[in-house]
Amino acid sequence: MVKLNEQTREEYMNQVMAAAMKGNIDEFRFLFLELHPADQTDVFLHLEENERKQVYEFLSPEEFAEIFEGMEIEEQLEIVSELNGHYAAEMFNNMYADDVADFFNELPADQSAEILQAMNKEEAEDVKELLTYEEGTAGSIMTKEFISIKMSDTVGDVIQQLRREGPGAETIYYLYVVNDIGGLVGVTSIRDLITSSDDEVIENIMSTQIVSVHVTTDQEEVALLIQKYDFFAAPVVTEHNILVGIVTVDDVLDVLEEEADEDIGEITASRGSTDMTLTSAQAALRRAPWIILLMFFGLFTAEVIGRFEETLQTVVLLAAFIPMIMGSAGNTGTQSLAVSVRALATGSLEKRGLWKTIVREFSTGLLIGLMSGAVITLLLTIFYGDSLLGLIVGLSIVFSLGTASVVGSTVPLAINKLKLDPAIASGPFITTLNDIVSLLIYFTVATTFLQYL
Amino acid sequence: MVKLNEQTREEYMNQVMAAAMKGNIDEFRFLFLELHPADQTDVFLHLEENERKQVYEFLSPEEFAEIFEGMEIEEQLEIVSELNGHYAAEMFNNMYADDVADFFNELPADQSAEILQAMNKEEAEDVKELLTYEEGTAGSIMTKEFISIKMSDTVGDVIQQLRREGPGAETIYYLYVVNDIGGLVGVTSIRDLITSSDDEVIENIMSTQIVSVHVTTDQEEVALLIQKYDFFAAPVVTEHNILVGIVTVDDVLDVLEEEADEDIGEITASRGSTDMTLTSAQAALRRAPWIILLMFFGLFTAEVIGRFEETLQTVVLLAAFIPMIMGSAGNTGTQSLAVSVRALATGSLEKRGLWKTIVREFSTGLLIGLMSGAVITLLLTIFYGDSLLGLIVGLSIVFSLGTASVVGSTVPLAINKLKLDPAIASGPFITTLNDIVSLLIYFTVATTFLQYL
Repeated sequence: MVKLNEQTREEYMNQVMAAAMKGNIDEFRFLFLELHPADQTDVFLHLEENERKQVYEFLSPEEFAEIFEGMEIEEQLEIVSELNGHYAAEMFNNMYADDVADFFNELPADQSAEILQAMNKEEAEDVKELLTYEEGTAGSIMTKEFISIKMSDTVGDVIQQLRREGPGAETIYYLYVVNDIGGLVGVTSIRDLITSSDDEVIENIMSTQIVSVHVTTDQEEVALLIQKYDFFAAPVVTEHNILVGIVTVDDVLDVLEEEADEDIGEITASRGSTDMTLTSAQAALRRAPWIILLMFFGLFTAEVIGRFEETLQTVVLLAAFIPMIMGSAGNTGTQSLAVSVRALATGSLEKRGLWKTIVREFSTGLLIGLMSGAVITLLLTIFYGDSLLGLIVGLSIVFSLGTASVVGSTVPLAINKLKLDPAIASGPFITTLNDIVSLLIYFTVATTFLQYL
Repeated sequence: MVKLNEQTREEYMNQVMAAAMKGNIDEFRFLFLELHPADQTDVFLHLEENERKQVYEFLSPEEFAEIFEGMEIEEQLEIVSELNGHYAAEMFNNMYADDVADFFNELPADQSAEILQAMNKEEAEDVKELLTYEEGTAGSIMTKEFISIKMSDTVGDVIQQLRREGPGAETIYYLYVVNDIGGLVGVTSIRDLITSSDDEVIENIMSTQIVSVHVTTDQEEVALLIQKYDFFAAPVVTEHNILVGIVTVDDVLDVLEEEADEDIGEITASRGSTDMTLTSAQAALRRAPWIILLMFFGLFTAEVIGRFEETLQTVVLLAAFIPMIMGSAGNTGTQSLAVSVRALATGSLEKRGLWKTIVREFSTGLLIGLMSGAVITLLLTIFYGDSLLGLIVGLSIVFSLGTASVVGSTVPLAINKLKLDPAIASGPFITTLNDIVSLLIYFTVATTFLQYL
């Protein structure tokens, strides 16, 4: 058993590469192919260019396909430029069609067309089909390598078929039953197959309770469905119920990670830039526009404060509590935002309804406001000996937090309903909006109280 | 095929319950059991108490077990109180041991002991074992229903064994090969089995490259491993390599969702309160302590501003830019936080190393600061006709953003390394810290410039 970690990888790599550099192909292959493909990818990516060239010679395109599949897109783009055309085409022939399509999506159209030309006709057709589906749909993440059987087959027939087709399929756990025109009519599992006798007819053991998704179904919805039903895979059909592919649970894992990244990106206005492989200049260029844009909004808050310059002149100490009030409103708004974003992601919003969610968030914000407001009024009265200041700040907190929670929960939900760009609902935008509102509340409360003094 | 959505569920439910209320057990069972278990759970949870009581009579404990497994913990707690002791014990006998253990974890110890007493001895043992593992470890999420085979078995033997044990196992995709004392020595898959002849010996087709996890391995690490290797399941072993359970990919889906919730909870200081089933009073009670605690920190910022009252008296307009500088520092810090939190969650931190990550974030923050600082200096010079003010604000932005990105990335990483409570690394804490630092920078810069006027 060869399982690698940070320490053993280097040692093992040295052995593998020593074998390669000695030109000892048998030893190299023995050591290298002993590794799990995911670890082969790990080791491969740590090699120098001349060592990589040696690997291409010692491994068949079919063997290298498994290594290539495990890489990130950026790594694939770099590596593919080192391969000769024939080797690359053979490698793509041996990859799952969905992985090839994912890669081609990042390639200039003329380059992918050229490779498709060199590939086997059948494989190329599958890839071309997958490329027609919009990103983020079931069609774009499904695989074409599934097993379909006929209702009239016997268990024995299917087992024979699995012996032939099994090695090329992405999973053989579920077997999909189709009619003459490819329509999905049933499903059975390898478990049912094994517990039935060889001459049993599929029709008798298949289930007709099929949960399927449409090619255009959103990938997040597919993930929720697979999660709900604890499936290993879900069949993907056209609008005429023709089975065209399956989405497997490992694709769903990737989707969930992607969606979590997106959620966090939205909350923190760092979408697309949490990737650790970016250089700091790249990350800065992606993140700076958000910061600068938000800075412009910050000028509004400067305007608001400027309008109340007179009030500020009278009691300069009022300025001291600007950060605290804005901060509390911001924090409450962000909490509400987190609730809404997760409710959207986990589908629990649909269970409860929009209106109930907003009302709950408003009541929550108001309650938090009342508690915090009472505390701060008391504190300022004690420490600053100024109960009027305490009252002004306390009341502002109550109003600001109630408003902030409504803004924090409503904006993302509204944007989702209206299908606008969710970036507008990001944490910093909501915080900035809450900044302006809470400042207006603070200075209005303060000005009102001061004029009655 | 019966697939339910919001609309069809109500209609179908009415049919099902009409059958139940007429006392027509056959019609009820036909309609209800036609549904996928996940949908049975959905329908069941929409019933009234008297209707639920009817269901317990019409379904066997074994049938009801599948419905119960699909519920949330809170729902399970409510439902179990409606079941009589014998029915409940039989139901638990028919559930997967890991699901029973998850439920018992939420039950008072005397109540779960009572149920364990009434359960089958063998089932109860499995559950008791699972209860000994700490929450969040592989042991706590693994299932005991796996299939283990012997090296000397033939493929035919194993297929016979699968016919007997298959229906009770959580998955039959992987078959784990153990020696006489239960030590894990190999793994094979149903795919290998099917493509081999009946008299082939397992030893010849099994793989000895086993990727396994330890009972105490963190569940997040298990999830990353299964994701990396695209497994459907991973074997769990003791420190002596004895196979004691498996973690399946559907458990990993739940772990990933939990972890994403945690990450977002950390970033937004709303951990444990994004659950939509909480009432607003419950949510407020969980969230208010954070807001009030952060408000106390806000008093520090009030202190800082108070110290510079003199500077503020001279140029009241300085107060107008407090929110913008604090906001920009807060936003930059939050972006860095998101990068670190995701790097920890996806394991990419280990690939790159701590130091490199921090240096990258600092450079990124400084670059963003330089860009933003240049823009704001220009703007204030143009709009306020005051280049000194522009310079003060611009310089403050450069320093604040550089610092904020270091704080935002270092704090969560340090806290992770030191194994402290990650709540300290939450977004609002980091933002509050950055507030104080950026205010100090701003007023120091301002005071310095003003005294040279």
